[in-house]
Amino acid sequence: MINTRVKAIEWEGGRLKLLDQRLLPQQEIYLHIDDVQSVFDAIRDMVVRGAPAIGIVAAYGVVLSARAHCSDQRQDSEDASWSEKIGKDIEFLRQSRPTAINLFWALDCMSGLLSKLHRENAERQLLTMASQIHQDDWDANRVMGGLGAELIANSDTRRTAVLTHCNAGALATGGYGTALGVIRSGVEQGVITKVYADETRPWLQGARLTAWELSQDNIPCYLLADSAASHMMKQGEIGWVIVGSDRIAANGDVANKIGTYQLAIAARYHGIKFMVVAPTSTIDLAVASGVQIPIEQRHSDEIVTFSGANIAPPEVSAVNPVFDVTPAELVDAIVTEKGVVESPCFEGIAALFS
Amino acid sequence: MINTRVKAIEWEGGRLKLLDQRLLPQQEIYLHIDDVQSVFDAIRDMVVRGAPAIGIVAAYGVVLSARAHCSDQRQDSEDASWSEKIGKDIEFLRQSRPTAINLFWALDCMSGLLSKLHRENAERQLLTMASQIHQDDWDANRVMGGLGAELIANSDTRRTAVLTHCNAGALATGGYGTALGVIRSGVEQGVITKVYADETRPWLQGARLTAWELSQDNIPCYLLADSAASHMMKQGEIGWVIVGSDRIAANGDVANKIGTYQLAIAARYHGIKFMVVAPTSTIDLAVASGVQIPIEQRHSDEIVTFSGANIAPPEVSAVNPVFDVTPAELVDAIVTEKGVVESPCFEGIAALFS
Repeated sequence: MINTRVKAIEWEGGRLKLLDQRLLPQQEIYLHIDDVQSVFDAIRDMVVRGAPAIGIVAAYGVVLSARAHCSDQRQDSEDASWSEKIGKDIEFLRQSRPTAINLFWALDCMSGLLSKLHRENAERQLLTMASQIHQDDWDANRVMGGLGAELIANSDTRRTAVLTHCNAGALATGGYGTALGVIRSGVEQGVITKVYADETRPWLQGARLTAWELSQDNIPCYLLADSAASHMMKQGEIGWVIVGSDRIAANGDVANKIGTYQLAIAARYHGIKFMVVAPTSTIDLAVASGVQIPIEQRHSDEIVTFSGANIAPPEVSAVNPVFDVTPAELVDAIVTEKGVVESPCFEGIAALFS
Repeated sequence: MINTRVKAIEWEGGRLKLLDQRLLPQQEIYLHIDDVQSVFDAIRDMVVRGAPAIGIVAAYGVVLSARAHCSDQRQDSEDASWSEKIGKDIEFLRQSRPTAINLFWALDCMSGLLSKLHRENAERQLLTMASQIHQDDWDANRVMGGLGAELIANSDTRRTAVLTHCNAGALATGGYGTALGVIRSGVEQGVITKVYADETRPWLQGARLTAWELSQDNIPCYLLADSAASHMMKQGEIGWVIVGSDRIAANGDVANKIGTYQLAIAARYHGIKFMVVAPTSTIDLAVASGVQIPIEQRHSDEIVTFSGANIAPPEVSAVNPVFDVTPAELVDAIVTEKGVVESPCFEGIAALFS
């Protein structure tokens, strides 16, 4: 069984230990975080990224909030205010990034529990919940890994190379990966032979993170420029495209890293199967279709500069949408921990929750 | 009339003056070249790039060869050898890059003339021919600019934003541009409102060259990550995709910078028109279809490093095809100086030469 030595999120010694993903692959530096503002910054500034990972980290952030506010002796006379303060921190954490639904889902879980707690054991019980969210994500990833690999094994392609985009791996989740979880399971079962990884501009999560993570676990990986994917498909090099997701609408539309939509169009053109791997916490039944999913626009500098140096003339600016929406009609299968939805549509998604 | 202040190739004071495009946009440095080896290096190392520009520079390279070999007094007794030596230099220059056909076309022109020349006036006559190739390319670009802009004016889109890939501009040609020539003419005529430019990994010709060139001429330009193109198309932001070409097969298949094929697939999916702009010297009637066009594979380092620093783990390598082939069926129009071929096919291409 291909496990992974990558540990991006750990709760250790009463603090949150995060691998600073901005510094990979050059440096493997861990940050030790014990306050809510630092959790917010870590999410906004992409120390941690990936929809499930953001949710887990935000949940631990609520534990740190509880520690700060439950032990504040000045509040002894006003028993309600400790939970109001935690509630305020939860609202604050919601603002850290807009697209990934897992952030809001995890904070809703924590918020729901908070309303039932007493001050004296709030921190401990919130920690139990955060740890459970973390463990559940890991377990879900393992289940999805098996289901996705089975899907490939039962398809026409069988032993095949696959293409992935961005990083939907151990680094983006509780520790095994969604898309890369399927790849781990697929390699273990011998149905996946190698991985082509889009470098994934502008943050280069493919080059910096996916290539690093796969090479840590000795899974054969070749990088390519994002725009070379169609050429590789045409050469017959790729049997499946496998990606994660930041939010899935009720009709099966999939928001994910910018470029996913382009891959899905190209995969369909070449008759290549397109698999999305995401836990049900990524599904947002409150949005009917992808058009309602907010798409984060990040700063032009992420395109026009590199390592602080200008790569374009300073007077030119860039448009920088960092997610896009792939319509359900281009998706062959959504793999969740509760089962696989083939040719996703409203009914298929709804059935996961019944 | 939007002219351009960009002068990437000049014959000045008996030497070839080249703008070193590797250093743009940070530095505007010109190299003065007076030997064949330096011309070879400038093409191979991408001081100059762009199919028509490579052809023009190679032609001037033959002039420099003639100067070296025609004035060598030791050869007085063996009159044939000066032309053999130039012929050898021509063969050498052919090896500088494999995909752009204009290189071979220009060298064939020079070689054909060489066979008719006497030693005493060879250099002068070869220079006349090289200058003519340069001037003809400029004139062809102006004609294509008008034809392409007219095509947009007569289409459903009229006043529209357009998307381009790589750099098919003044920097890539004799001085006006193929795709960017159409954009210059279209802006001048008010049919093009603004330009979205793919950054064009891995060499970032879009960010470094197209954005620089358009901003030199005050044409509104916004960069985007290559993988964001489909998202922008879906937003209804783009009316036409306009690109150049490195070689066009007899059936209308188009080789161009890696990523062009992906754009063409996406354009078709969105019902957006796809225009290729190239002089007839880019058409290679000797290749029946795109599968026969050699695709240059460059070094993995172009993907896994940036400015000399690793952006991926050193143990991971990349596949780096730098061109791809867009099948004629995805091309709406090929614009040449001899006319426009709509829905290109073998007959339409052949008609340009009849």
